[in-house]
Amino acid sequence: MGEIVLHNYFRSSTSYRVRIALEMKRLNYTYVAHHLRHGGQREPGYLSVNPQGLVPALVWEDGTMIAQSLAIVEFLDEVAPEPPLLPADPLGRARVRMLAQMVACDIHPVNNLRILNMLRTRFGADDAAVAEWFRHWVGETFAPMEKMLAESPQTGRFCHGDTPGLADICLVAQVANNGRFGVDMTPYPTISRIAANCMELPAFIKAAPRNQPDAE
Amino acid sequence: MGEIVLHNYFRSSTSYRVRIALEMKRLNYTYVAHHLRHGGQREPGYLSVNPQGLVPALVWEDGTMIAQSLAIVEFLDEVAPEPPLLPADPLGRARVRMLAQMVACDIHPVNNLRILNMLRTRFGADDAAVAEWFRHWVGETFAPMEKMLAESPQTGRFCHGDTPGLADICLVAQVANNGRFGVDMTPYPTISRIAANCMELPAFIKAAPRNQPDAE
Repeated sequence: MGEIVLHNYFRSSTSYRVRIALEMKRLNYTYVAHHLRHGGQREPGYLSVNPQGLVPALVWEDGTMIAQSLAIVEFLDEVAPEPPLLPADPLGRARVRMLAQMVACDIHPVNNLRILNMLRTRFGADDAAVAEWFRHWVGETFAPMEKMLAESPQTGRFCHGDTPGLADICLVAQVANNGRFGVDMTPYPTISRIAANCMELPAFIKAAPRNQPDAE
Repeated sequence: MGEIVLHNYFRSSTSYRVRIALEMKRLNYTYVAHHLRHGGQREPGYLSVNPQGLVPALVWEDGTMIAQSLAIVEFLDEVAPEPPLLPADPLGRARVRMLAQMVACDIHPVNNLRILNMLRTRFGADDAAVAEWFRHWVGETFAPMEKMLAESPQTGRFCHGDTPGLADICLVAQVANNGRFGVDMTPYPTISRIAANCMELPAFIKAAPRNQPDAE
């Protein structure tokens, strides 16, 4: 299918997920940045690539496009199976997908830039109200996730055993985002430990927002 | 693993997704209802089953629990492969997962009951403002999804070819939800056609909110 282009933004946590997976799979890709705060993802040229006008999107030379970070990561895991990002057994795969989706469906969507902007424009939310909203929804999911991870014998050095995978990818990207809104991580020692273990790995470091060409 | 219990709520669109998959796979399950508007999902007995206090959750006699609707549906597809809910080829699977996640990550999370309640309590949103919020986020995703479905040769009687799958499951549950907030479906003829095709199938009809024991 030829060269891969990743349309993304250094600070976007969904872009970060895909970058980690690409690095873990040792796949080469061309980095194309869209500055979300300047509306770069809504330019006509990009809308003709991804009509949804969101990042990340993976695009090939023949025009094939995949959007949605978890769909991209699962695709990469299917076409480049090593190292695997999901366990082999269906219940283990379900547990990892569940943990990933707790972040990807219950935290990130309600806290991303377009929602926070709408709270400002539609309801007059100020910086403090926006930060409170962000922290509230992190806590609603991180509290039960901490409990689930701390109490499960399946949790190891990472979310599921001793190898990093899809759930760790989502967790690390969320923890990075939390730092921008002053989330107190003290109540989440297991989540913090797993995120720290991930951040010792070259793939996670290379994919981090601060190490991207458009980092500010 | 024994008898399956589905913790759910008739009107929850994520519960609806799982019910459709269970019906398509012809799997028997015990229906346990939690009345979301009365906080039934936050009762201690249920929190000990699913610490996140959300529905749906699939639970077995031995205490094994899977939450998050897409994780549940993919699990069911792995352990009961017929009929398949994802195509066989990785690019096709990615397209179906992308379409499913456009609903599951970009519409549903920002429009579910707990978010709408927070808009009321935190920002004083009234019924009209809540409905406007709901319709706005549906449009932000349904407009590009309509274009992607209408323009792709891979779209058939359903989202991907002529057999229903994961994307159709998410689409139908969202369309059902839209009806409660007065979403004008006129701009979305392809989405409407696919949803109507689904609603001719027994599995989709049996799983519909109005046909559940806790329906009001």
